[in-house]
Amino acid sequence: MRYHKIPDETVRRLPIYLRGLMLSADQGLEHLSSKSLADYVGVPSWQIRKDFSYFGDFGTPGVGYRIERLAKEIKKILRLHVIRRTALVGVGDLGTALLAYPGFRTFGLDIVAAFDVDRRKIGRKFNEITVEDLAGIEGLKKRQISMAIVAVPREAAQEIVDKLAAAGVRGILNFAPCKVTAPKRVKVITLDIAMELARLPYYMPSG
Amino acid sequence: MRYHKIPDETVRRLPIYLRGLMLSADQGLEHLSSKSLADYVGVPSWQIRKDFSYFGDFGTPGVGYRIERLAKEIKKILRLHVIRRTALVGVGDLGTALLAYPGFRTFGLDIVAAFDVDRRKIGRKFNEITVEDLAGIEGLKKRQISMAIVAVPREAAQEIVDKLAAAGVRGILNFAPCKVTAPKRVKVITLDIAMELARLPYYMPSG
Repeated sequence: MRYHKIPDETVRRLPIYLRGLMLSADQGLEHLSSKSLADYVGVPSWQIRKDFSYFGDFGTPGVGYRIERLAKEIKKILRLHVIRRTALVGVGDLGTALLAYPGFRTFGLDIVAAFDVDRRKIGRKFNEITVEDLAGIEGLKKRQISMAIVAVPREAAQEIVDKLAAAGVRGILNFAPCKVTAPKRVKVITLDIAMELARLPYYMPSG
Repeated sequence: MRYHKIPDETVRRLPIYLRGLMLSADQGLEHLSSKSLADYVGVPSWQIRKDFSYFGDFGTPGVGYRIERLAKEIKKILRLHVIRRTALVGVGDLGTALLAYPGFRTFGLDIVAAFDVDRRKIGRKFNEITVEDLAGIEGLKKRQISMAIVAVPREAAQEIVDKLAAAGVRGILNFAPCKVTAPKRVKVITLDIAMELARLPYYMPSG
């Protein structure tokens, strides 16, 4: 089942709620009040209630949210309940950091292949993954890899995205600080770290 | 001058517009239509006009936005026109990638110090920056460092944030996948890379 009409900003917050719920479950909690969840994730409780209203009502007055049920539901909405085989392109400093990052699997994302142009890197192993030549991207569909993370320099990003799209990849997280275009069937999210940092000074008290 | 009442979601989009404008200026353009900017940054033009309405009107009918003027204004609103001295804490794979990342300076962010606990890293140089012992955080105020990037493991993040807050840091970009708390005078933005990736499957067509 696909849930419709959930605004992008709500979709952006759902993983934040999910992480809050999962960390609470790790601490042995079974219920969480809307206020506790709000404090925990740093989103006002009216906003949380509004976001949840798009897909049902999970709170019980006086008891709060049932953590496990709500987490399961959010995972289903975000379609994270299926493990997705993911390729990494670009095994530089950032790429290496991403390969070592344990957090992806929690969200159903399994990095199973890595590609680079650098002959010195091809054949090397990082966290159980052997780096392959870029040409291998062509075979992604056969290997049932439908997602990719792009961590290449800006100049190379568009070409890599084109190759990934041609190879049947459906979702791309792009770390290159530039706009890339892709066919409609491919969803691209660009995550420019500098731009996240660029929001900080606005909120910093002066003096 | 401080602009008030700009919604967080608008603040989140302003750096995206700014990057679009800067890349257009690099290409030699002086004006950009609202539609071209929309196509360029992937935000609907009605949203762009609404966002800009919070701080004035920068478009001229038939000519579009004056790129240089608008970029300057956005920089001022985001308070990016002042260079801010920034410290990096945690020189692992991700930290090293961040030290090598050229994009920060464009947004007025200058990484001038790096700290780690690992004795093998202390004293080593990465991109002109010599890694210092964590104890050095205490001296940040004297060195006029008011921003920090935290790229340490989850377990260490809160302790580091406490130290940074005590050392007078006013803005923190936290990459550790956990919630950290700080006094009100310190603005913390947590950027959990896995959670950005977690939004992708929602948008991916199935099958």
